[in-house]
Amino acid sequence: MATKIINGKEVAFHLREELKRKVYELKAKKGITPGLVTILVGDDPASQIYVKNKKKACEKIGIYSEICQLDASTVEGELLERIRRFNNNPQVHGILVQLPLPKHISAEKIIEAISPQKDVDGFHPFNVGKLLVKKTMAEILKSEIFIPCTPYGIIELLNFSGIQMKGAEAVIVGRSNIVGKPLAYLLLAEDATVTICHSQTKNLAEITKRADILVAALGKPEIITGKMVKEGAVVIDVGMNRLAVGLVGDVNFNSVIEKVRAITPVPGGVGPMTITMLLLNTVKAAKWSAGL
Amino acid sequence: MATKIINGKEVAFHLREELKRKVYELKAKKGITPGLVTILVGDDPASQIYVKNKKKACEKIGIYSEICQLDASTVEGELLERIRRFNNNPQVHGILVQLPLPKHISAEKIIEAISPQKDVDGFHPFNVGKLLVKKTMAEILKSEIFIPCTPYGIIELLNFSGIQMKGAEAVIVGRSNIVGKPLAYLLLAEDATVTICHSQTKNLAEITKRADILVAALGKPEIITGKMVKEGAVVIDVGMNRLAVGLVGDVNFNSVIEKVRAITPVPGGVGPMTITMLLLNTVKAAKWSAGL
Repeated sequence: MATKIINGKEVAFHLREELKRKVYELKAKKGITPGLVTILVGDDPASQIYVKNKKKACEKIGIYSEICQLDASTVEGELLERIRRFNNNPQVHGILVQLPLPKHISAEKIIEAISPQKDVDGFHPFNVGKLLVKKTMAEILKSEIFIPCTPYGIIELLNFSGIQMKGAEAVIVGRSNIVGKPLAYLLLAEDATVTICHSQTKNLAEITKRADILVAALGKPEIITGKMVKEGAVVIDVGMNRLAVGLVGDVNFNSVIEKVRAITPVPGGVGPMTITMLLLNTVKAAKWSAGL
Repeated sequence: MATKIINGKEVAFHLREELKRKVYELKAKKGITPGLVTILVGDDPASQIYVKNKKKACEKIGIYSEICQLDASTVEGELLERIRRFNNNPQVHGILVQLPLPKHISAEKIIEAISPQKDVDGFHPFNVGKLLVKKTMAEILKSEIFIPCTPYGIIELLNFSGIQMKGAEAVIVGRSNIVGKPLAYLLLAEDATVTICHSQTKNLAEITKRADILVAALGKPEIITGKMVKEGAVVIDVGMNRLAVGLVGDVNFNSVIEKVRAITPVPGGVGPMTITMLLLNTVKAAKWSAGL
């Protein structure tokens, strides 16, 4: 049986086409243009690329997008004041603060200052908590809560690829607030049995080998090798490690490919989905703000 | 090696003595009497017992406690108005709404109406989310966030019993919002490798057998038997099933006892800890409200 390469670009393209139609409809029928503000503090080159890519992706499907570029020396109070103004601006439906922030600013405080109704990243504690207590994916999708983009994108990739989550053993390597933890409760809502591993896990290979669905999200280049993967597993590689040779995932693709049923490549797997889900969340924000 | 019976009553007694001293000090030095309001809607007999037990436990250590008993026919708006008044009352440091509520009242809406600063049950989405994003237990304890009582009590029991969580394989059976899910992220903050099982888990026995620490929180009498437990494991039984024979846990104690290193009995294990942590949270609420 040939291994399926899960094509994130293709799924993302399909979803973005659908979103483009929705944005067009919102404008034509309701006079609403979804709007996203991205706040960037400082001039980290990687962050600047991310922010520009988000803006481009917005514009391609008709979302109004604005980059609020602030100096690295901006004080916390100034940033809070900017957020307050965007919170009160009805043209702005989504607010995203590009992380990491300079060390003199508390990311926690900043995230909590964003109105939960405009928190398209899904990082506000209120949204995190609302999501966690939902019992099923159907309940989550019915509610007006933002799902964090990367885990949401992974669930969509699995769905599009026809991979059964219910009853599957899912093992997540990595417990970040952006991927590992929220993905754990999304997979739980999909009725998977979920294990979370991390740097303190003993016998990692033994545990990853149990996985029907293995998610690598540790940020260490090619650490997951063929020996650590069960025959016929589905492997989702969230890693984005920029090495001299180029962009590399957390999975050693070549040693794993022969054993698995399906795998996401890097690049072209999870990556394109993350921005797509941000677009989706922004469109949702615009709809919800209008009571639609 | 003899199996250790983890004595929840003893640990609870020790903690309550400590709390009694703290309450005395708060009164003597700061003139603050911690106050807890428990709201009970309707006349469910089990709920009435729980509420009375909480009141008694409060009084024993010097916490002021009030039961707000409302008729089963109370409408949602009336309950919301009561909560608003308790939110604004500076003598009230903790507000607890006894669940379940009558069906015509949305528990979600009611929990969200409680001020997060008075949410001593730790069920408000804001508190749930704040807790989830913390990385270590030290970070959690340093922050002003309420930890849900039953999972908090379990962590304390493990600590008091000298059971190493770091690097241990912890398996939780049950994914409730009151026990399973919050316990998963507390154990994660303690550096355990955590697996969550539930009704849709396949080969449950195979998974429970991997556990160094096994937590049974499904609410099904004696479903965990000796065959499902690893030699030398630590077993925490959260079950409280009222049968004709009396109170019975989720673990079949007699078939498990010979195999395990330590186990909590029912009654006298997790039960006494839950109320104790509620008392602790109420004292914390009083201290935090005074900026202490």
